[in-house]
Amino acid sequence: MADQKANIGVVGMAVMGKNLALNIESRGFTVGIYNRSSSKTEEVMKDHAEKKLVPSYSVEDFVNSLETPRRIMMMVKAGKATDAVINELLPLLDKGDVLIDGGNTNFHDTMKRNAELDKSGINFIGMGVSGGELGALHGPSLMPGGQKDAYDLVAPILDKIAAKANDGKPCVQYIGPNGAGHYVKMVHNGIEYGDEELIDESYNILRNGAGISVDDLANIFKEWNKGELNSYLIEITGDILTRKDDLGSDKSKPIVDMILDRGANKGTGKWSSMDAMEIGVDQSVISESVYARFISMLKDERLNAAKVLNGPKAADVISEDDKKNLVEKVRKALYFGKIMSYAQGFEQLRFASEDYKWDLKFGELAQIWREGCIIRAQFLQNITDAFEKDANLTNLLLDPYFSEIANKYQSDARDVVALATKAGIPVPSLSAAVTYFDSYRAEVLPANLLQAQRDYFGAHTYERTDREGNFHYPWYTEQ
Amino acid sequence: MADQKANIGVVGMAVMGKNLALNIESRGFTVGIYNRSSSKTEEVMKDHAEKKLVPSYSVEDFVNSLETPRRIMMMVKAGKATDAVINELLPLLDKGDVLIDGGNTNFHDTMKRNAELDKSGINFIGMGVSGGELGALHGPSLMPGGQKDAYDLVAPILDKIAAKANDGKPCVQYIGPNGAGHYVKMVHNGIEYGDEELIDESYNILRNGAGISVDDLANIFKEWNKGELNSYLIEITGDILTRKDDLGSDKSKPIVDMILDRGANKGTGKWSSMDAMEIGVDQSVISESVYARFISMLKDERLNAAKVLNGPKAADVISEDDKKNLVEKVRKALYFGKIMSYAQGFEQLRFASEDYKWDLKFGELAQIWREGCIIRAQFLQNITDAFEKDANLTNLLLDPYFSEIANKYQSDARDVVALATKAGIPVPSLSAAVTYFDSYRAEVLPANLLQAQRDYFGAHTYERTDREGNFHYPWYTEQ
Repeated sequence: MADQKANIGVVGMAVMGKNLALNIESRGFTVGIYNRSSSKTEEVMKDHAEKKLVPSYSVEDFVNSLETPRRIMMMVKAGKATDAVINELLPLLDKGDVLIDGGNTNFHDTMKRNAELDKSGINFIGMGVSGGELGALHGPSLMPGGQKDAYDLVAPILDKIAAKANDGKPCVQYIGPNGAGHYVKMVHNGIEYGDEELIDESYNILRNGAGISVDDLANIFKEWNKGELNSYLIEITGDILTRKDDLGSDKSKPIVDMILDRGANKGTGKWSSMDAMEIGVDQSVISESVYARFISMLKDERLNAAKVLNGPKAADVISEDDKKNLVEKVRKALYFGKIMSYAQGFEQLRFASEDYKWDLKFGELAQIWREGCIIRAQFLQNITDAFEKDANLTNLLLDPYFSEIANKYQSDARDVVALATKAGIPVPSLSAAVTYFDSYRAEVLPANLLQAQRDYFGAHTYERTDREGNFHYPWYTEQ
Repeated sequence: MADQKANIGVVGMAVMGKNLALNIESRGFTVGIYNRSSSKTEEVMKDHAEKKLVPSYSVEDFVNSLETPRRIMMMVKAGKATDAVINELLPLLDKGDVLIDGGNTNFHDTMKRNAELDKSGINFIGMGVSGGELGALHGPSLMPGGQKDAYDLVAPILDKIAAKANDGKPCVQYIGPNGAGHYVKMVHNGIEYGDEELIDESYNILRNGAGISVDDLANIFKEWNKGELNSYLIEITGDILTRKDDLGSDKSKPIVDMILDRGANKGTGKWSSMDAMEIGVDQSVISESVYARFISMLKDERLNAAKVLNGPKAADVISEDDKKNLVEKVRKALYFGKIMSYAQGFEQLRFASEDYKWDLKFGELAQIWREGCIIRAQFLQNITDAFEKDANLTNLLLDPYFSEIANKYQSDARDVVALATKAGIPVPSLSAAVTYFDSYRAEVLPANLLQAQRDYFGAHTYERTDREGNFHYPWYTEQ
C-alpha cells in the first residue's frame, strides 16, 4: 500500500460520491474511497473491480491510504453528516491537508467550518457541484471556494474532471475565500429556479391561456432552442413535451398531463432569496419562482379556493387577434425575463462580493456555467463578454448587448404580462421581471412618499433633493 | 426604600424606554428606572421629579428596588446590548422573576434566550411593541410571548398601558410561548411594509402615470380614508400630501416633492420575508415591498439606467378614457392588494404557528392591531370576525367577506396592473397581489412541467394525477 498511495480520497459512496470517484479515476488518478457503512464501498468495488479505486473500511485506513498533503472530497449530506465526517477525520489529518465539501451546504456553515479548521492548519474548500448524477460522472460544473493555496493543490484534478465548454476550457475556477464557492452555487440554484419558472409561465400562457396543444408546444420549444434561448432547460422542455405517459391506461397522453402540479423544492433555492434579503438586493424574479413552488404545493387549498374565487375565463379574454403573434411575443418575454433574472442574480453576486469580501470575478462565473450545470446556455457567453468589456459593470442591464435586447423586447414583455393579468393566468416571475426593469430605470420612484410616512410615524428622517443631510419634518407642530 | 418597592423596572432610558416608563407611571404604578450611563436617568428624573419613578444608578440597586417576583422591562438595542443587560441582571435575579425584552429582537434570539433563562428559572418574555415613541407614551400595541405564568404576572400592567380599541379592549394579548410575540411583531412590520408600498404605488400611478396634482391627491386620500380603506396610514398620507416645504426657497412646494426617493429600512421588515421563505409560504406582496425599498436606494444607478433603458411615456399610454375611472379603480386595486397582503401575512402566521408549535389565535392578533400600531385600521375588525366565524380558516380569501370583495375588485385590480405595466410605471406589490390571487385560485398551475424538468435532470420523481406515489419517468431510455 505504502508505495501506491491514492492521489485523492472520496468519502461518501452514495450516487454523487460514487460518480465523482469514478469520474476522477477515469482521468488517470488513483482514488481512495470510504463510506461509513462498508456495504456501499463493497458494492462499488464489486461493480468496478478493474478500476484504480483503493477501498478502506476504517477512517484510519482511509486517511493512511492517501498521499500527502491529503486531498479528501466529502460527498455526504449537508449539515450534521458533514460535521460528523469532519470530526472523524480531524484527529487523523496533518497541517496542509485539504478537505473539500462537495455537498449542497449553506455558505454560512462553510464560512464557519473554514475558519474553525483553519485554526488547526487544515484547508477547507466548500465546493458547489452542479450537474446532477450524470454531471458528476461525466463532467460537472465546479465552484470551489476556500484557501487559494489549497485550491492550487486540487486544481489539476478538478480541471480534469470538470465539464469542458466548447472552447475546451474546464468549467471550474477558483471562486474566492471561505464560503464563496457554496454561495455562488446557491445563486446558481436560485437562477435555475428562475429559469424554470419563466419557462413554466410561458408554457402556461400558451397552453392554458391560448389553448395551444402539447404537441405544438413541443415544436415551439424545439424551435426556440435553435435561437437565442438555446439552453439545456429549453432543450429538455421540448423533449419532455414529446413524451407520452408510460404508466396510465392511455399511452397516447402526454406525460405532462399526468403529472400533478405540485412543485417540490429541496431548500437550496430559497437560501438565495433569503440572502438577497439579508444583503439588501432586489431579487424579485427568483423569489417569485420560489413562492410559485410553495403555492403550487397547496393543491387542495387551491381546489377549494377555485370554487369561491372568481376570475376571467382566459378564452374570453385572449382574442384570435391576440393569439396571432403570441408565440413570438412570449418568446421575447421569456428572454426578457431571463435577462432580468440574471441581472438580479449578478447584482446579488456583486453585493455579496462586497459584503463578504470575496472579490468575485463575475465573468469567470458565467464561463464555468457554460457546460455541466442545469443552467448551461449559449447566453452565458454574453455575460462573460459583458464583464470582459467592463469588469466593474454594476448591472448587466447597463451592458450594450443586454440593454439593446431589453429595450427591443420590453414592449412585448409588457403585452404578455398585461394579457396574462387580464386573462387570469398567473405570471409572477414575468411580472416581477417587468416591474424590476421599470423600477431599475425609474428616475423617480414613490419612495419619497414612503420616507415622508416613515418620518411622520417614526421620526426616521428623510433626505432631500436639493441638499445633503437628514431632515425631520415638524408633522405635529404645524398644519 | 424597603417599604415602597417599585412595581416594575425599566432598563434603558432612550426615548422608547423613557416613554414606556412614563406611560406605566401614569397608570398608577411605581416604576424603577435604570440606564447604563447615569446621565440619562438623571435627565429623566430632572424632567419628571414629581412622578413615582425610582431611579437607580447601579444594577444592584435597581434590582433591589423592585418588588418580587420582579418584573423588568428591557428597552435597549436588539442584539449584543440585550445580551449585555441580561448577563448583568442574571446573577442578581431570583427564580420566578420576569424579564421582558421590548426591543425589536429577532424571534430566533428570543427563542434561544427564553430556553436559556428558563434553565435558571427566570421567565423571559419577548414583547413586540408597536406605535413608535408616541405609542409608547400614550398606548402602544403590545405582543408579548413567553411563559404563560409570567405573562399573567405582568398582564395587569400591560392591560393598563396598552392602547384601547374603540370597544375599550386593550391592544395586548398573550401571543404564545417563547418567540411568538416577536414573531408576530415581525409579521406586523412586514404587513406595514406591504401597506406602505401599496399606498405608494397607488400614489405613483395617479401622480406620475395619470398626472394628478399633489393637492388633488391629498383630497383623494382624505376621501379614501372615509371608506373601507380607513386606516392610520391612509390618514397620514392624506395629511402628508397637504404639507408644504418648510426648508426650501419655495415654501409653496409640496414637501413630498422635496424628499429624495430613497426608501430606507431598519431591517425588521426583511426578516418577515426571510422566514416566509424558511417555512415555505408565499409572501410575495410583502417581499416585493422590501425589494422596492432596496432598489429605490440605488438612486445613482437608476439615474444611469434611465439614460440607456427605454420604456413607454406614461402620458402616451394612459388615455383620457383610461383616466376617467382611474381613481376609483386604483382605490379598489389598493384594497384588493391589501387583502392579498393580509391573506399572505395570516397564512404565514398559520404556517409559523404549526412549525414553531405556538397555537396562535389569529383573530386575537387582528384585535390587538386595531389601535396603537402603525397598521391600525377599521379593516382589522373584519379579520377578527372571519376567525371568530371559523377559527380554522386556512386563508382569509376563503372567508365570505373577503372573497366577496376580492371577487368584486379583481377586475379593476387587473386593469390597473395591466395599465401600469403598459405605461412603464412599476407596481411590484400590486402585480404580486394579482398573481397571488390567480395562483391561489388556480386549479392548475404549470408545476407539472416543473416536476417533469426536475425529474428529467435530477431524478427527483413526480406525483401523478391518477394515483398515489412518487414516480420516475425513463427519460433517458426511450424516445
